[in-house]
Amino acid sequence: MPHHAFQLTVAELQAVIDRNPFNVWMGLQVATVGSDGIELRVPGRPEFIGTAALHRVHGGIISSLVDVACGYAVMASTGHGVSTVDLHTDFHRGADLGVLHVSGQLIHRGNRLNCAQARITDGSGILIASGRGNFYSTRDALPEVAARLQESPSGPTPVQRE
Amino acid sequence: MPHHAFQLTVAELQAVIDRNPFNVWMGLQVATVGSDGIELRVPGRPEFIGTAALHRVHGGIISSLVDVACGYAVMASTGHGVSTVDLHTDFHRGADLGVLHVSGQLIHRGNRLNCAQARITDGSGILIASGRGNFYSTRDALPEVAARLQESPSGPTPVQRE
Amino acid sequence: MPHHAFQLTVAELQAVIDRNPFNVWMGLQVATVGSDGIELRVPGRPEFIGTAALHRVHGGIISSLVDVACGYAVMASTGHGVSTVDLHTDFHRGADLGVLHVSGQLIHRGNRLNCAQARITDGSGILIASGRGNFYSTRDALPEVAARLQESPSGPTPVQRE
Amino acid sequence: MPHHAFQLTVAELQAVIDRNPFNVWMGLQVATVGSDGIELRVPGRPEFIGTAALHRVHGGIISSLVDVACGYAVMASTGHGVSTVDLHTDFHRGADLGVLHVSGQLIHRGNRLNCAQARITDGSGILIASGRGNFYSTRDALPEVAARLQESPSGPTPVQRE
Repeated sequence: MPHHAFQLTVAELQAVIDRNPFNVWMGLQVATVGSDGIELRVPGRPEFIGTAALHRVHGGIISSLVDVACGYAVMASTGHGVSTVDLHTDFHRGADLGVLHVSGQLIHRGNRLNCAQARITDGSGILIASGRGNFYSTRDALPEVAARLQESPSGPTPVQRE
Repeated sequence: MPHHAFQLTVAELQAVIDRNPFNVWMGLQVATVGSDGIELRVPGRPEFIGTAALHRVHGGIISSLVDVACGYAVMASTGHGVSTVDLHTDFHRGADLGVLHVSGQLIHRGNRLNCAQARITDGSGILIASGRGNFYSTRDALPEVAARLQESPSGPTPVQRE
Repeated sequence: MPHHAFQLTVAELQAVIDRNPFNVWMGLQVATVGSDGIELRVPGRPEFIGTAALHRVHGGIISSLVDVACGYAVMASTGHGVSTVDLHTDFHRGADLGVLHVSGQLIHRGNRLNCAQARITDGSGILIASGRGNFYSTRDALPEVAARLQESPSGPTPVQRE
Repeated sequence: MPHHAFQLTVAELQAVIDRNPFNVWMGLQVATVGSDGIELRVPGRPEFIGTAALHRVHGGIISSLVDVACGYAVMASTGHGVSTVDLHTDFHRGADLGVLHVSGQLIHRGNRLNCAQARITDGSGILIASGRGNFYSTRDALPEVAARLQESPSGPTPVQRE
């Protein structure tokens, strides 16, 4: 698998994300896709709450957001689907229900195994959690990318960021 | 904080779990609580799917189940609430949508910091994922436990497993 | 790569371990190899100390022991070399300098990616640390195993535990 | 414990590091201490080798370097000793024996629990490994810092970077 310095557009990444029901349920909105990674915006929903007395977001949701931020950072820069190999989340502060900002960044791109990191901040920019994971790339390129790869036999045409 | 060898009943642990909306949404059912840990049964729901083409459960859900299995294993044996400090999940196989069995087990009980591990198997007993985490105990005992602690000044009365 | 339920002997695993200088420096002694994993005995040396004032073993040594316990548990049951993909260690208590007992156990054997866990106890059996990791199998079998595989075209002959 | 934006000097951090035998054995040299973290230089020694056939550094050494980079990044900015709570290392490439550069950076400073991350590169700047950990702060300030804290009752005087 040759290593293209690839980049999905915001619309392409949103389409990839929206193919999967749990992502849609979480309400993931792609904010930016760039060479330094991706940013998601997550308005939050009442079912996110894990500590009812404190109105705090469940650790499982936080961990899910680290997973998607890392995984889609890998996808956006490789153009291939991924499956999570392992995921580590450190919880720094409790997060009140409200908008969360999630950023993901590729750390290392390997032959098939990629590593990425993520940060989650609340609406005031306070760091809530951070983490990292390893992701296995699928052999097949994403449908959004496959067409582009065919048009350009020497590799995908770099696309502009929206 | 003295260390009681405590044990919530199945009904008590279910009540603790059901206070929190994301747990209810995930449909966590307490199967057993014992000295060797807890077991949850999770029937699954369509929104769990993370890879629509393959009908596979989202890594975020898997990670959420590791979080609750570990956290409630700590709670069930300490009688105190917890907050997750860090969580690590290893994904061994893709999980088809369907019943998942989740077990959690205390590894180490510290003064305030506890460590637990979890395993997730599918309906045929195949190991899907496993993981571990550290959990900080809250100072206050769970309401279910506080009453019992008051009745017994020398520590909680050990309760029978349901 | 076919999946043999393999098992190195104590002497074979010790030979594999002793090929590598850092293992020799740490003084790893194979105690047992079985279907439930491996056990190492580590007498300790003064350079292990990480907190001189408290005579406590360095976290890096503890983490190294989790790495070897997990990695050699995978090797002993697969007959293939490994490289560590990721490693997670939870430190439960400070360890005084002295004999440490380290056990490693395979959690999941995949096509190329394997997961294992480890526990470290001190001379009194107190749990010091525990952890887990993912390990990539090399394509070639260990030299100790290759000969046996050739002799038996239908797979390696199960060996008795020493 | 009030949160000072503290900073050890290179000489102070080297003195703290050199109090502990395993650090001395590893040959840790403090290169820089700054508001963005610390950098260590590690020339390497033959006993570091973990795969003799390939002359590659042992994963335990790599993990030990992630531990010290994270831990001393916390110490340098808090002025307090630390003990490692958990440590996670991702191994991206095999490292040939030779100089390694290790950087550590504080991610989150909590009341007692701090999180930091680390990166290890080889002599050509290639990323070998990266990781993160949580570290518990000791109540007492480091001796190097205690004197300075006494001189300045309102908090430590910020020191210039060497």
